[in-house]
Amino acid sequence: GSGADNDLYINQAIVFIEDAIQYRSINHRVDSQSLWLYRWYYSKTCQWILSLTITVILALAFIEEPSSLTVTSDVRYRLPAWNPPCGLTESIELLCFLVFVVDVAVKSYLIGWKEFWKNKWLMAYILTLIVSLTDWIVSLSFFCKESVRIRRILRPFFLLQNSSMMKKTLKSINSTLPEMASVLLLLAVHLCLFTMFAMLLFARTKDNQQDKEWVVYFRNLPDSLTSLLVLLTTANNPDVMIPAYSKNRAYSIFFILFTVLGNLFLMNLLTAIIYNQFRGYLLKSVQSSLFRRRLGIRAAFEVLSSLKETPASAQQSCVSVGALLQVLQRVEMDSRCKQAIMRSLKMCSCDQLSAAQFQKLFEELDKDAIKQHPPSPEYQSHFMQKMQFTFGHPYFGYLGNVVALANIISICVVLVIDADKQPSERDDFFLGAINCFFILYYLLEMLLKILAMGLKRYLSYPSNRFDGLLTVILLILEIATFAVYGFPHPGWRPELMGLLSLWDMVRLVNMFIVFRFLRIIPNMKFMALVVTTLLDLVKNLRAFAGILVVVFYAFAITGIMLFKGAVVPLGNTSFNFLIQTFSIKKVVVLYFKEKKVISWCSAHFQAEVIYCLLYILSVHLICRWAKIYFVAWWLISSVIWVNLFVALLLENFIHKWDRRCHRESLSDIEYQRTVELMFRDVLEEPTEEELMEKLHQHPHLQLCR
Amino acid sequence: GSGADNDLYINQAIVFIEDAIQYRSINHRVDSQSLWLYRWYYSKTCQWILSLTITVILALAFIEEPSSLTVTSDVRYRLPAWNPPCGLTESIELLCFLVFVVDVAVKSYLIGWKEFWKNKWLMAYILTLIVSLTDWIVSLSFFCKESVRIRRILRPFFLLQNSSMMKKTLKSINSTLPEMASVLLLLAVHLCLFTMFAMLLFARTKDNQQDKEWVVYFRNLPDSLTSLLVLLTTANNPDVMIPAYSKNRAYSIFFILFTVLGNLFLMNLLTAIIYNQFRGYLLKSVQSSLFRRRLGIRAAFEVLSSLKETPASAQQSCVSVGALLQVLQRVEMDSRCKQAIMRSLKMCSCDQLSAAQFQKLFEELDKDAIKQHPPSPEYQSHFMQKMQFTFGHPYFGYLGNVVALANIISICVVLVIDADKQPSERDDFFLGAINCFFILYYLLEMLLKILAMGLKRYLSYPSNRFDGLLTVILLILEIATFAVYGFPHPGWRPELMGLLSLWDMVRLVNMFIVFRFLRIIPNMKFMALVVTTLLDLVKNLRAFAGILVVVFYAFAITGIMLFKGAVVPLGNTSFNFLIQTFSIKKVVVLYFKEKKVISWCSAHFQAEVIYCLLYILSVHLICRWAKIYFVAWWLISSVIWVNLFVALLLENFIHKWDRRCHRESLSDIEYQRTVELMFRDVLEEPTEEELMEKLHQHPHLQLCR
Repeated sequence: GSGADNDLYINQAIVFIEDAIQYRSINHRVDSQSLWLYRWYYSKTCQWILSLTITVILALAFIEEPSSLTVTSDVRYRLPAWNPPCGLTESIELLCFLVFVVDVAVKSYLIGWKEFWKNKWLMAYILTLIVSLTDWIVSLSFFCKESVRIRRILRPFFLLQNSSMMKKTLKSINSTLPEMASVLLLLAVHLCLFTMFAMLLFARTKDNQQDKEWVVYFRNLPDSLTSLLVLLTTANNPDVMIPAYSKNRAYSIFFILFTVLGNLFLMNLLTAIIYNQFRGYLLKSVQSSLFRRRLGIRAAFEVLSSLKETPASAQQSCVSVGALLQVLQRVEMDSRCKQAIMRSLKMCSCDQLSAAQFQKLFEELDKDAIKQHPPSPEYQSHFMQKMQFTFGHPYFGYLGNVVALANIISICVVLVIDADKQPSERDDFFLGAINCFFILYYLLEMLLKILAMGLKRYLSYPSNRFDGLLTVILLILEIATFAVYGFPHPGWRPELMGLLSLWDMVRLVNMFIVFRFLRIIPNMKFMALVVTTLLDLVKNLRAFAGILVVVFYAFAITGIMLFKGAVVPLGNTSFNFLIQTFSIKKVVVLYFKEKKVISWCSAHFQAEVIYCLLYILSVHLICRWAKIYFVAWWLISSVIWVNLFVALLLENFIHKWDRRCHRESLSDIEYQRTVELMFRDVLEEPTEEELMEKLHQHPHLQLCR
Repeated sequence: GSGADNDLYINQAIVFIEDAIQYRSINHRVDSQSLWLYRWYYSKTCQWILSLTITVILALAFIEEPSSLTVTSDVRYRLPAWNPPCGLTESIELLCFLVFVVDVAVKSYLIGWKEFWKNKWLMAYILTLIVSLTDWIVSLSFFCKESVRIRRILRPFFLLQNSSMMKKTLKSINSTLPEMASVLLLLAVHLCLFTMFAMLLFARTKDNQQDKEWVVYFRNLPDSLTSLLVLLTTANNPDVMIPAYSKNRAYSIFFILFTVLGNLFLMNLLTAIIYNQFRGYLLKSVQSSLFRRRLGIRAAFEVLSSLKETPASAQQSCVSVGALLQVLQRVEMDSRCKQAIMRSLKMCSCDQLSAAQFQKLFEELDKDAIKQHPPSPEYQSHFMQKMQFTFGHPYFGYLGNVVALANIISICVVLVIDADKQPSERDDFFLGAINCFFILYYLLEMLLKILAMGLKRYLSYPSNRFDGLLTVILLILEIATFAVYGFPHPGWRPELMGLLSLWDMVRLVNMFIVFRFLRIIPNMKFMALVVTTLLDLVKNLRAFAGILVVVFYAFAITGIMLFKGAVVPLGNTSFNFLIQTFSIKKVVVLYFKEKKVISWCSAHFQAEVIYCLLYILSVHLICRWAKIYFVAWWLISSVIWVNLFVALLLENFIHKWDRRCHRESLSDIEYQRTVELMFRDVLEEPTEEELMEKLHQHPHLQLCR
């Protein structure tokens, strides 16, 4: 009936507006049941469960069998890690898989059969789930004793497929691959030609004293190739040329040519190419988000305009204010935006809204939230007003910075004086007394500021929140110290009591004081700019970071599988001998040095890799797989990812810089900046035709006109 | 008289046009004598003498007293370098100074008294000369035994002041300094805060086994600062965290945070800032060159229009064709351009030229020289025509590439087989025979191509010239080998005869063959693009390279002066012991590794520095000056210069890439590309008003109207 129809339209409008707010695609089923399912699927609870499941399945690696969840990384000292009994991690895994099965089923149903076949990500999702479940069954039937577990390598896929940003980013990276491949090919040609030159140049001679270069670096083709590849990472830079250079200075020309061509030109060319490809990346992505938002709003308008209550006589389609109010009340959105829209809707004199008016209403969503700090309390007493003026003045903040600096310097001085003292000679009195005084000042500063600004206004500034939190922590630590060890006095050097020794407490306090010193950042203009750029970058980088986690995870798991069993604790002496061996350092150095991005994840698996290599070298068997693994690792993590990062940073920073020049004057107002806002001046609004064309292509929505 | 006036005007026009061609400023004296002096000063001979003088005075460092012009760099083996007697280098220096005195006098006279006072470069030039001459006199009066020679550090200034491009670049770099300084300050704050954290975190404990981290890296404030600074260069990346990491994995978080913030964010921020500042640099510089050219032409027009023969009645000023022809015949310029201008001048029907026509005539200067290859010879015989078709076809070139590849592969195979053989076991027959065959093929290929294309057309392609030259060299080497050692036969292993052993000859031939393989580059599209970008870059980079030479030279001379006397050859054993010492490696590594730009110049002075440090460490005296010297070196050569280079590369590459997309279709025509042409589409023509305003500001030229 017409009432049911109206209900459906209202529901559709609600979902479309929510899609617009979240920048989601509107290409999903739009019948009543599906809409209910859709809202349920995208509800906070459901999405939170999904994220939790992904986190859990990724985190399983830390407790699964070749676990390295030990305090020390040294195989000689560490206790055997706890290995969960067979079936524990497997049952958690099964639970996760079940959640993923539900997820894929709901997703597939919601986008509809036709769209499903076009969606390669969903197909890959299903395939991954099938493979994982099969592998799981195999694993259980071997009682967890099987050696290869494919499903572990596949796990990061679940993280990948859940984020539309990551999928988009991956697509962008994919499109730069041909150019990157060309440069890498060029790099390979460069490497091969120079390897041949090197082998001809540093050939074996009759004099054994003279061919050190040949013996150490260019003994055969794989050795030469490795030497030059490592030179490309600059890890063995002076070493590799020293024997030849001390024979004849002219040999350095070869190495200089190689380094300049390879490192300076070709490597930076890679940066240039990636930057060139990524120049429009951010803008394009923000532009498509804007299109999705406008499309969602427009779709909501179209369905609302089909409501029966609308007078059919009107030439242009339009929406009644009442219907929109009804929709708005049920839409889940930021309460500030909702109130602003309601307010402007009420102020609007007309009863019907045209498409343009409708869009204009929702432009509130794109606007900066200008932060209003609550007002300071108004004191009656003249003395209090004077106090308020004094301690609310910026100079009081500057004084606080100066005191913090003085504290830092005093800590620094004590550290320098105490540097070489035995722990038993150390006198904690001086530092204790100083810190006690400074912390009292910080407390006083905080209280006076609260007095001057009022608690609400004080807390509305992020810098004050940071300050206050640290002051409270410091106060608690100091009180705890005094409670356990009494007040400081000369020769104040008590023994360990309770959890931490006095010295550890003092160190902890000092660290917090150093950390608190960061409050000076917003006071320095350039620093503030840099820090906000970096924070923006972190926001924009989430997708990249996600892809990095995917790559790290896959590499770590592959490494564990490849080098399993190679981790054999060696005796103390031979271990030290090997540590000193030069050649091992080179391989490890290739692995560590150039991997400028050390994530916690990888750090976790490092020890294994070192010991594996030690073992491998100790039996004089150089593992080809290890070499290939490390070269691939270097290429992906160091060369490609770092360049991508540089490209993004350039893009972000240059936009930010340009903007800074534009609105120098507005800098007092604090904006809650988002990527979308950064590009607002450059973005193009989609035209009405584009929107309507897209709407007519909707697979499930039949528009009346 | 009027005739003398006319002569002066003609001379002025000639000089202005020459200024325009060379992109020189026209702000110099314009009376007859000055013009003669000006043309003499900018004549090829004079400029060549000046360049030679600069080269000579810079090259003096290689033979002056602490000279390192020896074959080996190893102080244990090398013979004492030849030290020139006192007075030899000094007299050469004096000659150079005299040339510079003449240079500065002429330059100062030519720009005039008023301008002289505004020109800081000229003042600095005079000051440098005075200081140098004083130092020279002091030096001679001490009979070359004085310890400090300031004039050596000042030498690179002579190179700097002689190049307008370098001066301009320096100005650009100067304008980015404030931003760079901000980031460096941020880096310093980052370093200091983390140093304090580190000292608190890795403090001395009671257990001696446990505080390895403290002993090796964080013993006191300077040590900690150095450790973290070196970590910022990634030189000690895994080592510095290993002791702490094997104690507790969580310590890695500290190092990861430090590396990510410092290396990934702040260092790349520096790249972003420098790129942002340099984005318009090339364009701006080309734009100002264009302005100088247009201004020179316009000035020539103005002086020619003041000639008495011009009818005064004309409302607009104009120039007679005859006068212009007279000027053109005496102007020194590229003959192709001159002919083109003459031709279009003769084709022009009118007798008088307006300013616009005049400018248009000289636009020939900006045009690409489209290279016309001479035609192939036309053969009568049918057989010869077929031959010509076959061997002139691109496929024949591809066949040549395939053969070259086969040759490379064969050499590679022989190298791999022979890798571990003793020199006495080696049989040179196989390689000799193969190379003989291939070189014959190369000769045949060259001859057939010459037959098909004719010698002139063959030589007009750069790839053929490269090919032909290498083929001729290979042929000569091969003939020489056969002449000395006879034809190859199994067991062909003769003893050394003459200058080079057979093995050396074969190696030399092989190297040339590998080098010849580079002829494939133009056949691969992307490679060709990259290579032309790199060649363009090299052209644009001359100014940067010059500044780099200046910095290198100053650092090298300072290093020699600072570490003089520290170079003491140590006994063999202690030397080896020290080489193995870890701590020395770290300092040297800081010096070498990150200095990704190793120029020949620095390589020349490296050995000294190593031995200096060895000596310094061996007497347990860490030289603070050395540390400061190396940190300054790292900052300037590695951080700032490399970032400048990346910025330029990005700028160049992105322009090139955009252009490639524009004129994909025109790629068959070979252009002689210059920087000016690269930007032609973007350049703005200066307006008539701007030109005339600038002309009226000329300090020496009084225009009639």
